[in-house]
Amino acid sequence: MKWYIEKGQEGDVVISSRVRLARNLKGYPFVPMLDENSCKEILAKCKEAAKGLNLSYLYMDEVPVINRQMLVERHVISPEMLNNTKRRGLLLSRDEQISILLNEEDHIRIQCLSSGLNLEKAFELANTVDDTLEEALEFGYSEMYGYATCCPTNVGTGLRASCMLHLPALTAGGYIDSILKSVSKLGLTVRGLYGEGTVALGNIYQISNQITLGMSEQDSIQKLNKIVMMIVEKERDVRKKMLDNNADKLADRVWRAYGVLANARLLTSEEMIGLISDVRIGVNMGIIYNISPEVVNELAVITGSAHIAHICGEDNTPQKRDVKRAEIVREKLGGTK
Amino acid sequence: MKWYIEKGQEGDVVISSRVRLARNLKGYPFVPMLDENSCKEILAKCKEAAKGLNLSYLYMDEVPVINRQMLVERHVISPEMLNNTKRRGLLLSRDEQISILLNEEDHIRIQCLSSGLNLEKAFELANTVDDTLEEALEFGYSEMYGYATCCPTNVGTGLRASCMLHLPALTAGGYIDSILKSVSKLGLTVRGLYGEGTVALGNIYQISNQITLGMSEQDSIQKLNKIVMMIVEKERDVRKKMLDNNADKLADRVWRAYGVLANARLLTSEEMIGLISDVRIGVNMGIIYNISPEVVNELAVITGSAHIAHICGEDNTPQKRDVKRAEIVREKLGGTK
Repeated sequence: MKWYIEKGQEGDVVISSRVRLARNLKGYPFVPMLDENSCKEILAKCKEAAKGLNLSYLYMDEVPVINRQMLVERHVISPEMLNNTKRRGLLLSRDEQISILLNEEDHIRIQCLSSGLNLEKAFELANTVDDTLEEALEFGYSEMYGYATCCPTNVGTGLRASCMLHLPALTAGGYIDSILKSVSKLGLTVRGLYGEGTVALGNIYQISNQITLGMSEQDSIQKLNKIVMMIVEKERDVRKKMLDNNADKLADRVWRAYGVLANARLLTSEEMIGLISDVRIGVNMGIIYNISPEVVNELAVITGSAHIAHICGEDNTPQKRDVKRAEIVREKLGGTK
Repeated sequence: MKWYIEKGQEGDVVISSRVRLARNLKGYPFVPMLDENSCKEILAKCKEAAKGLNLSYLYMDEVPVINRQMLVERHVISPEMLNNTKRRGLLLSRDEQISILLNEEDHIRIQCLSSGLNLEKAFELANTVDDTLEEALEFGYSEMYGYATCCPTNVGTGLRASCMLHLPALTAGGYIDSILKSVSKLGLTVRGLYGEGTVALGNIYQISNQITLGMSEQDSIQKLNKIVMMIVEKERDVRKKMLDNNADKLADRVWRAYGVLANARLLTSEEMIGLISDVRIGVNMGIIYNISPEVVNELAVITGSAHIAHICGEDNTPQKRDVKRAEIVREKLGGTK
């Protein structure tokens, strides 16, 4: 089962939690300075070291662009990795909870995802992966600075923890800017849906820790956890206010979105994002009773442009993709045939 | 069964056919000059004469305004009769195919409705009613000019025949103006949904004959019938072109309208009219498979502002009416609860 169709804690607001560990092998320069042979050696060593984890291996330069785009839509690889594939590898578990990016910014980036707010689980999983790899590999590490990383912002724990939050009420209510400002002051970073430099499509925000030096992994994760819980409570408050203020209006908005999704014959990916946001809040507030949050999460992934283009194959015009997207959505929601 | 939930000929374009006969009693002045006593006499005489027809009688001045508005929405009385109720009466059959307006513009106006394009049936019914009344009453009539009517445009046969047409394709395609111009040149009149002086809401047009003098009833009806059939064919042509041109786009439009109707929690009467027009074309073109044209006709009537206000009773704010309208629509369409 993919991680995103599991029920998660605080799943009404938090879509997913992710922990990433950056590691580099001792005895090799950082990625930008690596020669071809060293790159190959690192890929081979890491593959070998990960053997016990039951991951599939992809050599990114051999992965068709459409499949790479799908990996971006599934939050497995970064948009950066979409375009730079040379000598890079990916190790991926079947449920997509574990991915290891090889020769991306660092030699090794362990990424673990879990559904809802569960940074501990993701961290535990990442640690297990880290330990397994460390049995076979020696990482660059100093007592003084911690793990060596290519970019100095990651030096120390090499850890980055993040949560993906759905904040439609805070956004609509105009509270979001001041909240994001406070979050920044607390040393966290906020980004839109697909990571750095993108806007918050569908009211989804990614909040992550930035401090890797002078703070333990546990403290870092607990800090993020605490701040996320504060935002969750605020979002719930404003949702409740929306409901108290005009329950019919809110119900109308979310049910219309459902009605369009369950019946439209053409859906662009842009429209999808807004409709899913409305349906998501409807489901998570108990207004929409006939679909589960897991279905919404799944829809968000499987209707991405690359996923649809992949299904369409050769038969691939913009309208045909929109027809196919609408078809998949109706089927998933039990809409009209 | 109400006339509007019967299956009608050419029902994909023609919603209803109506024949109206204007009659005045011999020995009385026209309505504007009638004194109170004569008014009462006429009401009593007509009631008596119509006894065999099994109609219910309403003295309009005693009918609450909300119920009068409902009669307008059901096309039983004219908007004019909504406000002028003094000394006026209405005889109405249970299925609403027959209505007799008393002391409106003329002493007697027999109106017969039938579903789809069926002017002959409406005319036959009107004749039966006319014959029944004439057994007991003497109408003003001259060999030279035919039936006496209050307004000179009705003198002669006293007949007005009309059809209500749904012309979304001709309207969207921009053909409607030239067609309506031609229709006018042929001596017919075109009006919007609720008769004279209103615009064509929901792409519904009422086309009626205007010539009452120097033409037999049969000729007059056949002429209207022929012209309506020409418009029906043109509308079908353009619908087919829309389908050939972009079937997905058309399907998307009509299914979205269905999706909103089956799921919205707030529906204004204005929005309703547009949505019903889209759903109507979807149903009549065989795109929407899960509801019948009769349900669409019924929806158009039972969601009128007065109908909803009547159901809401005391509990009657604009939003509550919109909530109730949406509730009724969802129930009728088997939408979400």
